[in-house]
Amino acid sequence: MKKFNPLKTDKKKTLLLEAFNNSFPARNYLIVHQANEFTSVCPKTGQPDFGIITISYVPAKKCIELKSLKYYLQSYRNEGIFYENVINRILEDLVGILKPRWMEVKGEFTPRGGLNSTVTVSHGKNKK
Amino acid sequence: MKKFNPLKTDKKKTLLLEAFNNSFPARNYLIVHQANEFTSVCPKTGQPDFGIITISYVPAKKCIELKSLKYYLQSYRNEGIFYENVINRILEDLVGILKPRWMEVKGEFTPRGGLNSTVTVSHGKNKK
Amino acid sequence: MKKFNPLKTDKKKTLLLEAFNNSFPARNYLIVHQANEFTSVCPKTGQPDFGIITISYVPAKKCIELKSLKYYLQSYRNEGIFYENVINRILEDLVGILKPRWMEVKGEFTPRGGLNSTVTVSHGKNKK
Amino acid sequence: MKKFNPLKTDKKKTLLLEAFNNSFPARNYLIVHQANEFTSVCPKTGQPDFGIITISYVPAKKCIELKSLKYYLQSYRNEGIFYENVINRILEDLVGILKPRWMEVKGEFTPRGGLNSTVTVSHGKNKK
Amino acid sequence: MKKFNPLKTDKKKTLLLEAFNNSFPARNYLIVHQANEFTSVCPKTGQPDFGIITISYVPAKKCIELKSLKYYLQSYRNEGIFYENVINRILEDLVGILKPRWMEVKGEFTPRGGLNSTVTVSHGKNKK
Amino acid sequence: MKKFNPLKTDKKKTLLLEAFNNSFPARNYLIVHQANEFTSVCPKTGQPDFGIITISYVPAKKCIELKSLKYYLQSYRNEGIFYENVINRILEDLVGILKPRWMEVKGEFTPRGGLNSTVTVSHGKNKK
Amino acid sequence: MKKFNPLKTDKKKTLLLEAFNNSFPARNYLIVHQANEFTSVCPKTGQPDFGIITISYVPAKKCIELKSLKYYLQSYRNEGIFYENVINRILEDLVGILKPRWMEVKGEFTPRGGLNSTVTVSHGKNKK
Amino acid sequence: MKKFNPLKTDKKKTLLLEAFNNSFPARNYLIVHQANEFTSVCPKTGQPDFGIITISYVPAKKCIELKSLKYYLQSYRNEGIFYENVINRILEDLVGILKPRWMEVKGEFTPRGGLNSTVTVSHGKNKK
Amino acid sequence: MKKFNPLKTDKKKTLLLEAFNNSFPARNYLIVHQANEFTSVCPKTGQPDFGIITISYVPAKKCIELKSLKYYLQSYRNEGIFYENVINRILEDLVGILKPRWMEVKGEFTPRGGLNSTVTVSHGKNKK
Amino acid sequence: MKKFNPLKTDKKKTLLLEAFNNSFPARNYLIVHQANEFTSVCPKTGQPDFGIITISYVPAKKCIELKSLKYYLQSYRNEGIFYENVINRILEDLVGILKPRWMEVKGEFTPRGGLNSTVTVSHGKNKK
Repeated sequence: MKKFNPLKTDKKKTLLLEAFNNSFPARNYLIVHQANEFTSVCPKTGQPDFGIITISYVPAKKCIELKSLKYYLQSYRNEGIFYENVINRILEDLVGILKPRWMEVKGEFTPRGGLNSTVTVSHGKNKK
Repeated sequence: MKKFNPLKTDKKKTLLLEAFNNSFPARNYLIVHQANEFTSVCPKTGQPDFGIITISYVPAKKCIELKSLKYYLQSYRNEGIFYENVINRILEDLVGILKPRWMEVKGEFTPRGGLNSTVTVSHGKNKK
Repeated sequence: MKKFNPLKTDKKKTLLLEAFNNSFPARNYLIVHQANEFTSVCPKTGQPDFGIITISYVPAKKCIELKSLKYYLQSYRNEGIFYENVINRILEDLVGILKPRWMEVKGEFTPRGGLNSTVTVSHGKNKK
Repeated sequence: MKKFNPLKTDKKKTLLLEAFNNSFPARNYLIVHQANEFTSVCPKTGQPDFGIITISYVPAKKCIELKSLKYYLQSYRNEGIFYENVINRILEDLVGILKPRWMEVKGEFTPRGGLNSTVTVSHGKNKK
Repeated sequence: MKKFNPLKTDKKKTLLLEAFNNSFPARNYLIVHQANEFTSVCPKTGQPDFGIITISYVPAKKCIELKSLKYYLQSYRNEGIFYENVINRILEDLVGILKPRWMEVKGEFTPRGGLNSTVTVSHGKNKK
Repeated sequence: MKKFNPLKTDKKKTLLLEAFNNSFPARNYLIVHQANEFTSVCPKTGQPDFGIITISYVPAKKCIELKSLKYYLQSYRNEGIFYENVINRILEDLVGILKPRWMEVKGEFTPRGGLNSTVTVSHGKNKK
Repeated sequence: MKKFNPLKTDKKKTLLLEAFNNSFPARNYLIVHQANEFTSVCPKTGQPDFGIITISYVPAKKCIELKSLKYYLQSYRNEGIFYENVINRILEDLVGILKPRWMEVKGEFTPRGGLNSTVTVSHGKNKK
Repeated sequence: MKKFNPLKTDKKKTLLLEAFNNSFPARNYLIVHQANEFTSVCPKTGQPDFGIITISYVPAKKCIELKSLKYYLQSYRNEGIFYENVINRILEDLVGILKPRWMEVKGEFTPRGGLNSTVTVSHGKNKK
Repeated sequence: MKKFNPLKTDKKKTLLLEAFNNSFPARNYLIVHQANEFTSVCPKTGQPDFGIITISYVPAKKCIELKSLKYYLQSYRNEGIFYENVINRILEDLVGILKPRWMEVKGEFTPRGGLNSTVTVSHGKNKK
Repeated sequence: MKKFNPLKTDKKKTLLLEAFNNSFPARNYLIVHQANEFTSVCPKTGQPDFGIITISYVPAKKCIELKSLKYYLQSYRNEGIFYENVINRILEDLVGILKPRWMEVKGEFTPRGGLNSTVTVSHGKNKK
């Protein structure tokens, strides 16, 4: 495990992301992708964390390609990063590439010591 | 599999759709049809996609006949088309025939590579 | 099966309905009755249809007596009538007798050809 | 079974209720008690009725003591009273004792003849 | 069991709590921690109480460290305190340390005598 | 409703049943059909009964054709017959036509007066 | 509440039970009735008990009539009797009337003080 | 927390247990009590453990009184004892008092570090 | 749709299947693969069928490679074949390639006309 | 990812495992540990695999220490190994250390391409 700096974009990660053109840009519509097998590492204990990441957005000109999103999320597998930070980082990276009209990223993490946690971050106003 | 162009109406498909007269046009009311066995083909990998399509609308003068809707949805079985596009296409075809006061089409697709996706598109304002 | 005309009141049916006086008419409150065993007949195919009918209302001077509601709903057992029409007809018959401040009738029908349908109709403004 | 008059307070019942002082009266907060084992008797058929009673309120100066609430609800065990009336009666009795900022009483009753019923009554505006 | 005074901060408890700096203070986002194994003691009967405590907040400059939150909640294990009071006390202690933009604490307690209870308290306006 | 005599075969019903040749008669294998929308009438009260009929069998030379089974089961819609009798009758009719190596018929009926009932009848030894 | 003696038959109760002739006595088959709304009283605390009673049997010459079974079970509503005893008593009363080839009576009671209990008693060998 | 020695009977605990006479000793029947709110302490980490304890037995001359069982199980609240040992200890204490024909004790514990554990111990042969 | 002959091996299909060597052939162990997205066509109506295929086996020298199994099952997408036949055909093709110690193939198909069907076929004796 | 050889013990892994003495070796009893967050890597595609590992055993002289089991299972996080092989390897490593009277290891893996797989391996005869 290496500790990951959540405050700036990691080029090796964002280069994994691919966008494709939205065929219906005139319409405000909602796309939701749920990744059920997210895992990273707790930077404090070195123990693996597990969670479900849900990415919801109203596209503008671009949509995210699913396979590239899978590789991007897998790139956190051996990174040491807190719940709050990884969710903010994913939002910022996806907003940077897609410039969506609205986006929300939610992480629901499995229990640690009898406590389970959810972090939800959003960008823009949901016009849908 | 042939790749399907989502940007224009496919006459062979829309001719399958039949409408009947709404007996209570003075009232704004809600009709929801959920098709649990939708399948099409991913245009990138050639692999089959599976999902649940939910069509909700407030009818004006016309309602969609259920059996014709089933045949229309089945006509995508061997077409190569992305999630985002097939949902927009279904909305446009049904709006063209029914001219509803409001309509929403939602597709909830089964997981691919640990990611499951939902796309939701709507037309008009829900007055119900 | 005989085809049922949904556009006008069927006296044989509405005579089954009984109302009792609301003991607390000064208060806007909500009553919901859910009938899990509704069945009628599809006028097109002659096949039986099955569904759950949910009747919600804010009473004015009258409340519907439960046993009479059961007999009224059972009277559709061998009638040929479309989903959209039976729900509108039930609403109109109950509104005629109860004059409620608000009423909604919802029918959730079991799948036919992989498609399940829900129809929701309402009368008045929900003040509750 | 004796038939119970729902229109006036039954002193034998309300004397069972005990209130304690709210330690945090400056804050608007929500308390919900759900009684899963409510039973009374149908005044028409003499058959037992069963339901779940949910009492939600924003306290002012007083909170209801749980054990006293249990005894109060048990006092309906052999009373003949309609669904709509028992829920209104419980609300009036509790409002009389607690003077809450807001209160709602809901009864969800088990099926009779394939019909299950819910009655929901409230007092005041929910400021929470 | 000792009876616990809910009206003032218990230093031995709040010293268990640790906060860390919010890395994304410019954004209004939501953090939810759910503790499934909360237990304290009923001050009236001496019997143990069990519940789920859910803490939701929009952080300002500080976030709560998870392990310290676990120890804080465990410190109630042998304290005699009512449902309504423990939830208000937890809110006040966490608000004192985190100064969040918004916070809500909810306790859902297991049934006692067939009655289960939920208490929900909040601080500030949810801007998320 | 007419009262139905369960003790002898009703030709109008069994003529609805069609069998097709089992393509793999050398192997003992299990076929299960579950009919979720069975309805008949209580011969005592005239009230409709509803249930799930599950037919399990190890075929010998014949298998039951699904659509014909549907029509056979629908033919009980307006017959007055007790739970115990209808299940025995269905078994006898199907055994008469299919001569299976083993067969079981189970009926799970919805609650009446708070009681729900299941009747299970079988023929032969299950060799599977 | 009066304390009920479980060791001998209470004629007032067994006179409520009615049997009808089994139309298919040559076949060993299984009948199960589940009563979801059983209630009696704890003889120690005077508090009501609630449970689900499941009666399974292989009939010989007689079957139990459903409505009479409902009245028999309701007759325990205000009796003080322990879980273990009421289940044994029901078995003995039903065996006395039906002389079944096999019978099992199971009671699943709701939690008291965080403990829920199940008692299962049987008579004869299950030949089904 | 004090570490508890699981290898011998703790008189302070077993004195909490009370038995009553089995009214139907001639019959082999099954009694199951499930305690959903068991908690003890991990002797290694000092952290609380939580679980569901299920006690199943075929009584001989004695049955366990429910309230006394609750107090006995609560007496482990602040004891340090491993999963495997507490389940064996409960079995031995109950067998010592009840001399049942058969008994099984099962403990299902909540996850620790993503691992949840179940321990099942029995005494005698189940003749039921 | 073309009608598929289930009585003989279709080389185009079985050539899709690949086996790999079992690394632990000395041990009898169980492998289960469940395919949730099986679809074929009804040879009578031309309508698509949908089901879950579960393949369970105790391997001898060979195990089935997962991706090849997926392609094999997908090859039925546009074939007209009855439920009973497709399950027998899959069993025979897999037995031919793997020569397992035991194998079972089960197909659970979604409802048609309110009837859902399951077919279960096996080969050899389960020694596990 | 490195490809892992499943046919021989990896000392670096088994040194993570710790056993403690069984305090009740005279009794045959069952211990089950379920690890909900197992992850390794597919040696063919390099993609992560996820599953639930369930370890059931009847101990002889030794029991497995839970924390050490967690570290052992985590050591597969970045290893390339097939489903069938990892389950056999875990069984062999645990049997080598615990010499249990009986042990079973089951892995239930999440869907890949619409197929989910379960592998179950055991050692010895279950005497419990």
